[in-house]
Amino acid sequence: MTAPTILLVDDNPNDVELALDALDACGIREGISVAPGGTEAVALLRGGIRPDLILLDLKMPNMDGLAVLDAVRSDPRTRMIPVVMLTTSGEERDIADCYRHGATAYVIKPLDFTQFRATVRTITDFWANLNRRPT
Amino acid sequence: MTAPTILLVDDNPNDVELALDALDACGIREGISVAPGGTEAVALLRGGIRPDLILLDLKMPNMDGLAVLDAVRSDPRTRMIPVVMLTTSGEERDIADCYRHGATAYVIKPLDFTQFRATVRTITDFWANLNRRPT
Repeated sequence: MTAPTILLVDDNPNDVELALDALDACGIREGISVAPGGTEAVALLRGGIRPDLILLDLKMPNMDGLAVLDAVRSDPRTRMIPVVMLTTSGEERDIADCYRHGATAYVIKPLDFTQFRATVRTITDFWANLNRRPT
Repeated sequence: MTAPTILLVDDNPNDVELALDALDACGIREGISVAPGGTEAVALLRGGIRPDLILLDLKMPNMDGLAVLDAVRSDPRTRMIPVVMLTTSGEERDIADCYRHGATAYVIKPLDFTQFRATVRTITDFWANLNRRPT
């Protein structure tokens, strides 16, 4: 099994740094692409990157998480990539919208950093270490 | 958040017992439905159970995991339920087939019981404790 690759999509530089730090604590340092918005995420995917997992923020200016989900799911080359929403929103409406647009899973981002690290660990334990993707 | 509900589908009684034991070790004792085959799993879903997670064996007589995936994904009432394949097969063809039929994730069942417990814990940490489902 090759090392897992992750595409992290978040417009908040602080959140990106926290996420990279948490991934680093899980031993994941390589194979991480970062997109500062939906447009850049879709450009990376159209450009040919095929991550094992997309960690996707919901609320972003210009192109939000729902629009990214639409783009990922409507392209046969990317539609089977698991997309885990990672957002501070716990609104029922956001949760329902994300699933309707094709999210694989929905995780609420904890505000506390220790909890955030534990959350990232739980995500990567399953998606980067345990889950098997087609080759 | 209410306690997570799980539908476990496996034709091997020993594997069911091991899985229940591993779930018990994760503190999950209630809300588990068990189906000894695909037919029974689909009957439970048609009968109205809506688990937060389906743990699905692949190789089963009569109605196998792929047929269960087809049934789950073709019914609007059940098509958004996450289905994690839990099977001893690590064959690339099986992995690809499961994703093609709509599996959410694919986990290879370890033969060693300690490892199997750890695997079930990783699955439930993400799917039963962290992931948010629409209400």
